[in-house]
Amino acid sequence: MIKAGIIGSTGYAGQELVRILLGHKEAEIKWYGSRTYVDQPYADVFRNMFELVPDICKGEDLSRLCDEVDVIFTATPQGLCSTMVSEDILSKVKIIDLSADFRIKDVNTYTSWYGIEHGSPEFIEEAVYGLCEFNREEIKKARLVANPGCYPTCSFLSIYPLAKAGLIDMKSIIIDAKSGTSGAGRGAKVANLYCEVNESIKAYGVTSHRHTPEIEEQLSYASGQVTIINFTPHLVPMNRGILVTAYANLVQDITEEEMRKLYQQAYQGEQFVRFLSAGVCPETRWVEGSNYVDVNIKKDERTGRVIMMGAMDNLVKGAAGQAVQNMNLMFGLPENTGLLMPPVFP
Amino acid sequence: MIKAGIIGSTGYAGQELVRILLGHKEAEIKWYGSRTYVDQPYADVFRNMFELVPDICKGEDLSRLCDEVDVIFTATPQGLCSTMVSEDILSKVKIIDLSADFRIKDVNTYTSWYGIEHGSPEFIEEAVYGLCEFNREEIKKARLVANPGCYPTCSFLSIYPLAKAGLIDMKSIIIDAKSGTSGAGRGAKVANLYCEVNESIKAYGVTSHRHTPEIEEQLSYASGQVTIINFTPHLVPMNRGILVTAYANLVQDITEEEMRKLYQQAYQGEQFVRFLSAGVCPETRWVEGSNYVDVNIKKDERTGRVIMMGAMDNLVKGAAGQAVQNMNLMFGLPENTGLLMPPVFP
Amino acid sequence: MIKAGIIGSTGYAGQELVRILLGHKEAEIKWYGSRTYVDQPYADVFRNMFELVPDICKGEDLSRLCDEVDVIFTATPQGLCSTMVSEDILSKVKIIDLSADFRIKDVNTYTSWYGIEHGSPEFIEEAVYGLCEFNREEIKKARLVANPGCYPTCSFLSIYPLAKAGLIDMKSIIIDAKSGTSGAGRGAKVANLYCEVNESIKAYGVTSHRHTPEIEEQLSYASGQVTIINFTPHLVPMNRGILVTAYANLVQDITEEEMRKLYQQAYQGEQFVRFLSAGVCPETRWVEGSNYVDVNIKKDERTGRVIMMGAMDNLVKGAAGQAVQNMNLMFGLPENTGLLMPPVFP
Amino acid sequence: MIKAGIIGSTGYAGQELVRILLGHKEAEIKWYGSRTYVDQPYADVFRNMFELVPDICKGEDLSRLCDEVDVIFTATPQGLCSTMVSEDILSKVKIIDLSADFRIKDVNTYTSWYGIEHGSPEFIEEAVYGLCEFNREEIKKARLVANPGCYPTCSFLSIYPLAKAGLIDMKSIIIDAKSGTSGAGRGAKVANLYCEVNESIKAYGVTSHRHTPEIEEQLSYASGQVTIINFTPHLVPMNRGILVTAYANLVQDITEEEMRKLYQQAYQGEQFVRFLSAGVCPETRWVEGSNYVDVNIKKDERTGRVIMMGAMDNLVKGAAGQAVQNMNLMFGLPENTGLLMPPVFP
Repeated sequence: MIKAGIIGSTGYAGQELVRILLGHKEAEIKWYGSRTYVDQPYADVFRNMFELVPDICKGEDLSRLCDEVDVIFTATPQGLCSTMVSEDILSKVKIIDLSADFRIKDVNTYTSWYGIEHGSPEFIEEAVYGLCEFNREEIKKARLVANPGCYPTCSFLSIYPLAKAGLIDMKSIIIDAKSGTSGAGRGAKVANLYCEVNESIKAYGVTSHRHTPEIEEQLSYASGQVTIINFTPHLVPMNRGILVTAYANLVQDITEEEMRKLYQQAYQGEQFVRFLSAGVCPETRWVEGSNYVDVNIKKDERTGRVIMMGAMDNLVKGAAGQAVQNMNLMFGLPENTGLLMPPVFP
Repeated sequence: MIKAGIIGSTGYAGQELVRILLGHKEAEIKWYGSRTYVDQPYADVFRNMFELVPDICKGEDLSRLCDEVDVIFTATPQGLCSTMVSEDILSKVKIIDLSADFRIKDVNTYTSWYGIEHGSPEFIEEAVYGLCEFNREEIKKARLVANPGCYPTCSFLSIYPLAKAGLIDMKSIIIDAKSGTSGAGRGAKVANLYCEVNESIKAYGVTSHRHTPEIEEQLSYASGQVTIINFTPHLVPMNRGILVTAYANLVQDITEEEMRKLYQQAYQGEQFVRFLSAGVCPETRWVEGSNYVDVNIKKDERTGRVIMMGAMDNLVKGAAGQAVQNMNLMFGLPENTGLLMPPVFP
Repeated sequence: MIKAGIIGSTGYAGQELVRILLGHKEAEIKWYGSRTYVDQPYADVFRNMFELVPDICKGEDLSRLCDEVDVIFTATPQGLCSTMVSEDILSKVKIIDLSADFRIKDVNTYTSWYGIEHGSPEFIEEAVYGLCEFNREEIKKARLVANPGCYPTCSFLSIYPLAKAGLIDMKSIIIDAKSGTSGAGRGAKVANLYCEVNESIKAYGVTSHRHTPEIEEQLSYASGQVTIINFTPHLVPMNRGILVTAYANLVQDITEEEMRKLYQQAYQGEQFVRFLSAGVCPETRWVEGSNYVDVNIKKDERTGRVIMMGAMDNLVKGAAGQAVQNMNLMFGLPENTGLLMPPVFP
Repeated sequence: MIKAGIIGSTGYAGQELVRILLGHKEAEIKWYGSRTYVDQPYADVFRNMFELVPDICKGEDLSRLCDEVDVIFTATPQGLCSTMVSEDILSKVKIIDLSADFRIKDVNTYTSWYGIEHGSPEFIEEAVYGLCEFNREEIKKARLVANPGCYPTCSFLSIYPLAKAGLIDMKSIIIDAKSGTSGAGRGAKVANLYCEVNESIKAYGVTSHRHTPEIEEQLSYASGQVTIINFTPHLVPMNRGILVTAYANLVQDITEEEMRKLYQQAYQGEQFVRFLSAGVCPETRWVEGSNYVDVNIKKDERTGRVIMMGAMDNLVKGAAGQAVQNMNLMFGLPENTGLLMPPVFP
């Protein structure tokens, strides 16, 4: 039985980790960390957990926690994990960091986009980018996994096969993404009140969203080319879900059917990536509550572009589900353990 | 492995049965019945099931179906199950009817509220009302279970302990209920379009909703008194969830604390009924996607009334979840098999 | 041209006042008061007002404000208006208080339900309860109007004709009310975040909501009897709208048709109260954005009760619209000036 | 007083025309046309109009209607207006067609994208494209106005100043648009049910949406260059609102500030186009219920692209509001008559 601790268990991603791990037969949660709710019953913070979680929220003391658990999930704001981690800690526990601290290999890029100093750049190289479908073997051996961002996961899985095959102009990529409101976190802000979000849609972080360099870095690896993109996220009045609509110029003459074969090959055997039938657009309602990413493409004969689309639950495959997928790999369990819940509709 | 067939698998309750049974380790679905979508892939009707359900929808031929499965769920409009069932069929399979056909013991009451003739009144007596928490032993032996209505389940569980104890005036009960829109079904009606339901709330079926006699009958059994109630359902702009706010006059002097003890006793050991801490109101968000019913009460010292509240997912404990709970009992499985998914929030 | 000042213009009710007064041809806003946003452009706080309101938010200095305007609206938390008002101020301007400070005639009742001392009990007697349909003549002469609460307005208008006629047991009244989320205000609280309110419904303030004594007082005046009620509000995932479903025991034999005549008489000539056709339930979508209250009743022959229903926009007839209606009366204008906008649907 | 008739008054756009014209002091509606609801009271179809519209729905007999009114609005499906219009009719009344029949000058393009024959191609040349901000003088003289599509209006107004100035590559334009659900109409379809739309977002009509050639044609006129675009609309769980996020490559070195000046010049004096302050993204909540379009741009220094954004109410400036704006021009009224309602928030 894997003993798990969660730093930041009282945010939305943290709570989703709890939900998933409660159904995971090989893991148990030993530590519900929280900054805001220390000493309060966890089930008072999230009443869905009434009678399911009897535990009390504890502080976020990583050095003490690492003696009690086998794996620590850090579902915290940027900058926290990198200041807490140390060789001593990593020698005792595995860490799966849901923040951005270890996702970007170039520390200057991190500093410039996130506007904070990195607390432990010496561990960046060791950290494995936890996109399970691509870095499976490295993840199995990792002590420190950087769980990918929600937008990057959905964007990368939507674009990868064409980027890898060298079929799209890597400087032409435009990613127009849409996210449910849980992605904005549980902080008490006027902008996230019900009446402010409901019945509206807006773009935010235009040209400056911090997931941009993460997407660019991963796409650069896949394509072997420098990749600079436009990435525009939007806030949608719904709780969960991310939809990516990505556009790129095709650099050679290829049919939609030929492109479909590349996706089929890329995702053959991948349980959590569902490449849809021709003509079917991904919709977030069909993946809600599950670890699936639905992907499809459409060629535009008139413009010579391809539209690549992906839909995903931002809290599952975009956060907690992928984190558990990583944990499974790191501990030698079947990768889908605890992740087989079908999407909940409606 | 229990072989299951679903008549009406392409409605919302039918699809929820599929979702739950996919995670049930002792059952498999052999027949996806549908009137509208015969010969179409089930996953084309509900794309969340892509790659999870490869089956094609079949017709609703009960006589053929009963040779292929162990249990049949009928998630169909009122009147269908009662015209299909027969001694021959019941000798071969168990039936769990999610419609109202066998819930009401007095066939005249059924006819008068539902406005249709009953197709097989000879089976009404045999049918067991499948409220597991109260009729557990009868359900275990039943061939035909009448799965309770969504509103009745939530109403009855909210009121039962005080009705049973004789503490409330059974003619003073007023149930003001609120339901998410999945309760209205998947038929294409203007009244259920997004723009008609969104940003609005309304009462419907005022003084005439067909769940009224079902609630009255069950409360009469519990209290041993003739029970006549006001029941007013409301349509709420949300997908899932039922909230019951019930009012009754107390017939003797009793403290809230003493009433709480009755609820604690009544639901001690009941996994799916969560009696909340004093002062905490049930909210549908805390039970979504799960089989739990959250219940609480509040005494009003000024008026001498008690307010009894319950929250539940109408598609789970109010339909498919309770149906699976019944199946578990009928087949000698642990009652909670396949029903342990925690509520999904947000 | 009436010069108006708004204390609390940056809350939802304050902003709705601005929206309505912008379309009012006999009034202009001279003072946008705010505690939080002083010195910021009003249109930065509410961007719908971009290019419509060039003004900067000012502080809430009533003594200075009263020299510059003819009428002051106080759309502030309870307790503020009563501490600001004085004979000097009332000698210079008319005040329409959207808070509860002057609604309740018995100061002890106010203190006990609101939990605060009253800042100027000497003005309570003078203050006129601004339910225009009933206190029209007093309002015309008033210096200080207590704008009714949202729930009380909708509740009272739904119940009044039967209370007045002595046809219902005033101790049997149960009001089950449902409100959109704008009623919770624009404060940054976790409980009002989009993901917390969306896809859920809950009761709140059960047996203790502060609108209870206000409703009781007004119903007592109407019926001439002591009135003690159960009032239970619920939070609904929508921006605007209040629905009241009220229940009472009939004290004499009367047909629904006879009761309908009482409503028709009571509201004949009342432009903003629409008594619906028989069998039509009020729905909040049909009044959104307007000053209308839709009312209807249904007799339950089985239980001897009557169900009285009302739907209203909580920000218009429940707050800002009624406040403008009061202003019109106080300044001798046609009562409907600026209030003729039809409901916005969908 | 202008006498108006509405063909298709029982759809969402038709009803919005009614709402706006009720507040228009120079026009009155004489004919509520409907195919589905003939002989039913209009206020039974849209109960917000109870006591405001006493009229009964009539059929859609244009030849009879044209003798009774001065202007006819056709808010009907594509293909209807073009089969009804004739020289005789146009000699008697002005027609404002809210369908696509007369928007596209090349009849082959119309036939190929809409898949239907054009009923009266002889009037295409005469018809004026009713984008008031650009074709004001032609509209004043027109007998037949083609009211622009919702997506084209918002797209064109967002992009125009840069297209006109020759600053963007007209073959690089990608328009990613998002619309509320009222744009899908009031037909009873499963895909538009509350539970299907709520809590989800999807793209639709990818590479094939019929507003594509309309946008291309207008942008071609503006830029003097052949324009071929990618246009991808998305369905958003909200009632009203369109958001356009458009991307284009800049063809010369220019600062954001210089581009802002072009927008300021283009929209100076245009009451209904609000060019926002630098850094402020348009949001649909700030225009709901009003005739405003909010526009802004952002230069991406890294990619050399400009992001052009627009937000609008699809039923007002995207349909009924613009139609009334056209009517005002055609009848010599101030262009903003009846269109001054501020946006409704929240």
